[in-house]
Amino acid sequence: MDFNSFLTSLGTSFLIFVVLMLLFAWLSRRPGNEVVYYPNRVLRGLDAWEGRRRTRNPFAWIQEAFSATEADVVEAAGVDAAVYLIFLGSVLGILVFSGIVLLPVLLPVSGTDHNVKAHAQNSNGTFNDLDKLSMGNVQEKSPRLWAFLLGTYLISFVTFYMLWKSYKHVSDLRAAAKSSPEVKPEEFAILVRDIPSAPPDQTIKEQVDSYFRTLHPETFYRSLVVTDNKKVNKIWEEIEGYKKKLARAEVVYAESKSTSKPNGTRPTNRTGFLGLIGAKVDTIDYCNEQIKELLPKLEAEQKLTLREKQQAAALVFFNKRPAAVLASQTIHAQMLDRWTVMEAPQPSQLLWKNLPKKLYEREVRQSIVYGVVFLIVVFYMIPISFISAITTMENLRKLLPFLKVIVDRTAIKTVLEAYLPQLALIIFLALLPSFLMFLSKAEGIPSESHAVRAASGKYFYFIIFNVFLGVTIGGALFSSLKTIIDHPKQIVSMLGTSLPASATFFLTFVALKFFVGYGLELSRLVPLIIFHLKRKFLCKTEAEVKEAWAPGDFGYATRVPNDMLIVTVVLCYSVIAPLIIPFGVVYFALGWLIARNQALKVYVPKYESNGRMWPHMHSRILAALIIYQVTMFGFFGLKKFIYAPFMLPLIILSFIFAFVCKKRFYLAFYYTPLEVASRDLKEIPNLESIYAGYIPPCLRPEKLEDVDQFEDAQSHTSRTTSF
Amino acid sequence: MDFNSFLTSLGTSFLIFVVLMLLFAWLSRRPGNEVVYYPNRVLRGLDAWEGRRRTRNPFAWIQEAFSATEADVVEAAGVDAAVYLIFLGSVLGILVFSGIVLLPVLLPVSGTDHNVKAHAQNSNGTFNDLDKLSMGNVQEKSPRLWAFLLGTYLISFVTFYMLWKSYKHVSDLRAAAKSSPEVKPEEFAILVRDIPSAPPDQTIKEQVDSYFRTLHPETFYRSLVVTDNKKVNKIWEEIEGYKKKLARAEVVYAESKSTSKPNGTRPTNRTGFLGLIGAKVDTIDYCNEQIKELLPKLEAEQKLTLREKQQAAALVFFNKRPAAVLASQTIHAQMLDRWTVMEAPQPSQLLWKNLPKKLYEREVRQSIVYGVVFLIVVFYMIPISFISAITTMENLRKLLPFLKVIVDRTAIKTVLEAYLPQLALIIFLALLPSFLMFLSKAEGIPSESHAVRAASGKYFYFIIFNVFLGVTIGGALFSSLKTIIDHPKQIVSMLGTSLPASATFFLTFVALKFFVGYGLELSRLVPLIIFHLKRKFLCKTEAEVKEAWAPGDFGYATRVPNDMLIVTVVLCYSVIAPLIIPFGVVYFALGWLIARNQALKVYVPKYESNGRMWPHMHSRILAALIIYQVTMFGFFGLKKFIYAPFMLPLIILSFIFAFVCKKRFYLAFYYTPLEVASRDLKEIPNLESIYAGYIPPCLRPEKLEDVDQFEDAQSHTSRTTSF
Repeated sequence: MDFNSFLTSLGTSFLIFVVLMLLFAWLSRRPGNEVVYYPNRVLRGLDAWEGRRRTRNPFAWIQEAFSATEADVVEAAGVDAAVYLIFLGSVLGILVFSGIVLLPVLLPVSGTDHNVKAHAQNSNGTFNDLDKLSMGNVQEKSPRLWAFLLGTYLISFVTFYMLWKSYKHVSDLRAAAKSSPEVKPEEFAILVRDIPSAPPDQTIKEQVDSYFRTLHPETFYRSLVVTDNKKVNKIWEEIEGYKKKLARAEVVYAESKSTSKPNGTRPTNRTGFLGLIGAKVDTIDYCNEQIKELLPKLEAEQKLTLREKQQAAALVFFNKRPAAVLASQTIHAQMLDRWTVMEAPQPSQLLWKNLPKKLYEREVRQSIVYGVVFLIVVFYMIPISFISAITTMENLRKLLPFLKVIVDRTAIKTVLEAYLPQLALIIFLALLPSFLMFLSKAEGIPSESHAVRAASGKYFYFIIFNVFLGVTIGGALFSSLKTIIDHPKQIVSMLGTSLPASATFFLTFVALKFFVGYGLELSRLVPLIIFHLKRKFLCKTEAEVKEAWAPGDFGYATRVPNDMLIVTVVLCYSVIAPLIIPFGVVYFALGWLIARNQALKVYVPKYESNGRMWPHMHSRILAALIIYQVTMFGFFGLKKFIYAPFMLPLIILSFIFAFVCKKRFYLAFYYTPLEVASRDLKEIPNLESIYAGYIPPCLRPEKLEDVDQFEDAQSHTSRTTSF
Repeated sequence: MDFNSFLTSLGTSFLIFVVLMLLFAWLSRRPGNEVVYYPNRVLRGLDAWEGRRRTRNPFAWIQEAFSATEADVVEAAGVDAAVYLIFLGSVLGILVFSGIVLLPVLLPVSGTDHNVKAHAQNSNGTFNDLDKLSMGNVQEKSPRLWAFLLGTYLISFVTFYMLWKSYKHVSDLRAAAKSSPEVKPEEFAILVRDIPSAPPDQTIKEQVDSYFRTLHPETFYRSLVVTDNKKVNKIWEEIEGYKKKLARAEVVYAESKSTSKPNGTRPTNRTGFLGLIGAKVDTIDYCNEQIKELLPKLEAEQKLTLREKQQAAALVFFNKRPAAVLASQTIHAQMLDRWTVMEAPQPSQLLWKNLPKKLYEREVRQSIVYGVVFLIVVFYMIPISFISAITTMENLRKLLPFLKVIVDRTAIKTVLEAYLPQLALIIFLALLPSFLMFLSKAEGIPSESHAVRAASGKYFYFIIFNVFLGVTIGGALFSSLKTIIDHPKQIVSMLGTSLPASATFFLTFVALKFFVGYGLELSRLVPLIIFHLKRKFLCKTEAEVKEAWAPGDFGYATRVPNDMLIVTVVLCYSVIAPLIIPFGVVYFALGWLIARNQALKVYVPKYESNGRMWPHMHSRILAALIIYQVTMFGFFGLKKFIYAPFMLPLIILSFIFAFVCKKRFYLAFYYTPLEVASRDLKEIPNLESIYAGYIPPCLRPEKLEDVDQFEDAQSHTSRTTSF
């Protein structure tokens, strides 16, 4: 890519960004759009604009994003969003500090040397102006390389400093959230898995109660045994479906009561498949009937489930916060594959189906999933090419003859032929995050937030391996892989050789990411269009409209790995081609600003993990730093710089830093420190409602007072009754 | 080594063994020797012989060792000894089971082939009859190799079975000991380290008290802050020294009162260096004076130490056993390098000096120690050769001229010249265990038993690397090492090539170990001689005599690695040269028998770690098994056996087995499961005496009632008093 096309691409991206920004400024102030641009505020019952519609300044949101405090962010979007902002902020800090020192020093140092020119004159190759500003322009064995070596040291130390500060900050934030005087149900419960099979005269519930009452005589409150809810859930969902249909039919009926037809038309539907066949019935009556019929069924099934379908997992509740912390960190059984305990996740993020999975089953599942992910990361191109090969025009015509009409038109044919192979790839890449999420849940992970972290890790490996390594080492990736396995040392020099060549590509890549990506993110064009379409054609009831604009959460599982890719790219090129630093700065500055806006006004968190994601981010930034240091070591070696071994202490230092951080901070993200859990609560917790919070909706009794009955239903099994 | 010399060596060893056994049978029944042969029984206040002196059967001890139950062993020598016996028993079981199947099958299979003979005829080499019975005698690509492959599978599965059974057994044994109704001080305490520096208006003691009282309001009992006892200990030891001297002098004085001299001679001594110079004084008066003078000094220093020399570690006591368990497994502080907690070791095995060492200091120390151990293991020959080179005759004469008189005599000179180089090696090897123990303690380990385990691990690496690999790969070890590092795959084929050659050496080695080693162990010749010499020439008081026969403990730090070496050797040769199996069986059978005898009658455990050593032994047996499997894989490869890859599933299986064992059992050896600690106690524990048990002797008040004063002394610092 020469310099001109680089500028063109940059210019186009910027133009798109400006257009999207203007669109945002205009659209966000149109009436009716507040639920798309301010859903978080709407849901929290705040005025969307706070009387701001009068201010004509389209950039007011920037000022607002800046002036909001961290406490505002935590209040609006939880600790997780605040931690994500800290992550963006730390990387931004690293890049700004490094850029201020490195750019004025390294650009002249490399710009005034002549290596590229010399090579270009020798061969008949071309060179572009960007390459002149990179380390590639410095001649071999030149003492100028000292500047680059010191630059690497600088960036490393800045990274250490920022990461240390951020880790401490996040740790305090987490401790503050965990020790807040609000009563949170998950802080009074522990999750118990791998419950051994009960003796024949006891239900699992009774066994759990007696076990924990013996071990925690003074602090045990109650237990809730996980049940197999598949059947009861189906009935419950059926009822909910009829309730929705009923509400919709009532709205339709009310709307049809115009002045001309004061009685209106009662809506009807067919009872058969998809409402297309079968007898025609009055919808309102039909739904009411169905619900009336299903309710006793549900009740019977609820009782049966509670009594007979208890499984080998339970939530155990304690009457004090510190007691739950003490219990969650102590091994209970002498054989450690029984009665395993952990802190209970929030009720909303429990993955109920995974809870009863046994320890060894989880381990086996994890191994298999890891194997599958490894295959996907390394060999994902193979099935794609295979699918592309099958889905040629000819094959499609043969297999799906009804497509013939379309396929035979020349214009469509040309387009399809050009895009079909890419289509398979695009579909694969679009489905990948969901697939990785599915795989993570299949591991037997008990909570949503943990599954998100696991999926994020998997996506990170995929993206680093295929984008970063894929682009730099290029098509020779597989042959390179063989070399790496046989001669592990060569990876260093290989990265050193390949990196500089793709510097320009990544400059454009980063620019595209932030201009187009962030433009779309901020303007929310896609959700806006979908919302308006849905409101116009589909939604009838209030609930349905609300569902149409429901904002969703940040989606850390893909967002974080994408940011991590940029961190890795920018760090690795920071000294080789320092021009990438400003691009990185813009990426993370815009990212920070927009994420802050979205956190304050748009996204609504699905769960709260109190910043549990941070160690994950921290270790990946450090991994990027170490990759970078190793690459630089190889690169200095290629430049025949005899002081290259001076990189080694730095690499060792990075490992020591990682070790110290882990020792000092990590476990407090895995467990809750007792100190933190022991701070006083605002009020005496209502244990009954805490307990009720964990009852799954399909089993939940109508009133809080019925919770005792719920518990009784689990305890006293009348084995004589046969079902 | 040819067959005849092998038999000769075997015969000699056996002869020595028989002589030692007869000596034991005779000596152990001589009056006055009971304290050497039955010290454990004497100390427990039992009759040494239980009226057995009449029975003339010199092998009664064998029958007694057999008939004793495990409970007897636990009672006499603790759980650790019982676990050591289980270790010997499991290995014995593995070898017996394997031998019964393998010997009748593999010996004929290899004995009837002709590989060795064929080779011997081709070259002009010699072969011995033993080699004919080994796998080396089977021809390449022979289908007979299937028998050896299946043999490897058999041994592996027998090992899995025995190890699983033993792990379960030891785990139960440990749980039984930990849940025993006896009150043990360590079960009510936790060890707290890395206490942050106290605010200026508080002592550390006050800080610890308020911290733990807040976090464990209902279960906290008291705390004992570790102090710097160096100075007070010195004074205390001085007093104890004078007390001993006094006792001795009084005995001497009493003995001198014969009928001829009714007043006796009052013993005297000189006050100067080593009692050689200085003024002559009456010992009894002098000691009394000194003690009287030192006592107030001690008291003042005690007060000062308690108040002003508090350090960053403490023992915290709880009023219930489960409370201590809960507290010991829960992280307390948000920053994890502060207030680290662990289960308290027994008072007797606390390494006080290591307790206040900070987390990072411990990590740094550990890294350095590991580095030093690595250097010792790999390069220990270098300093030895260096010392040998220096300590030649000529150098000795120059450096130590006073030795000239001895060195110049021809006879002595010849002997010295022959043995000096070996002498350095022997001294090094003799000092090594103590040095490794010193290194382990320098890591900052808090308890004696943990240090023993650490030293045992280090010694294991040394002995495996230098004896096992040293002998098999031989002098080419260092050049081999380079090959291994460059081409890691070659280690497999290298082991495969080198092992068979040294089979005969190891047969002799094992035989020597059990005949001579166990003979000496049982007959206790060395302790016997030392005891009699001491009693005759040194001991005056009862206490001194008791000290002279004090039996010591098993010395696991060297005993276990030595056994592990035999396990590794026997396992690795079990299929290659099955003849080693009977030797292994005899080694472990005799070992089991004699260790049982020693546990019941001789050794007195210094500490009780409740079988904490077992996971250490388990993982090393497994490691030996995996080394063995890898070696066999290489060996099959060398024999050009195309089914050699069938070994791979077995190796993977071994790793899975190790993983499952770790998941299921290990943590219960690291922590105490709550289930175990929650069983009822026999009596209401006397918390005051538990607390007093942890006060170091130099600070211990005279009476139990003074414990409160002791605690007060730590709490109320009068900062105004200046010292």
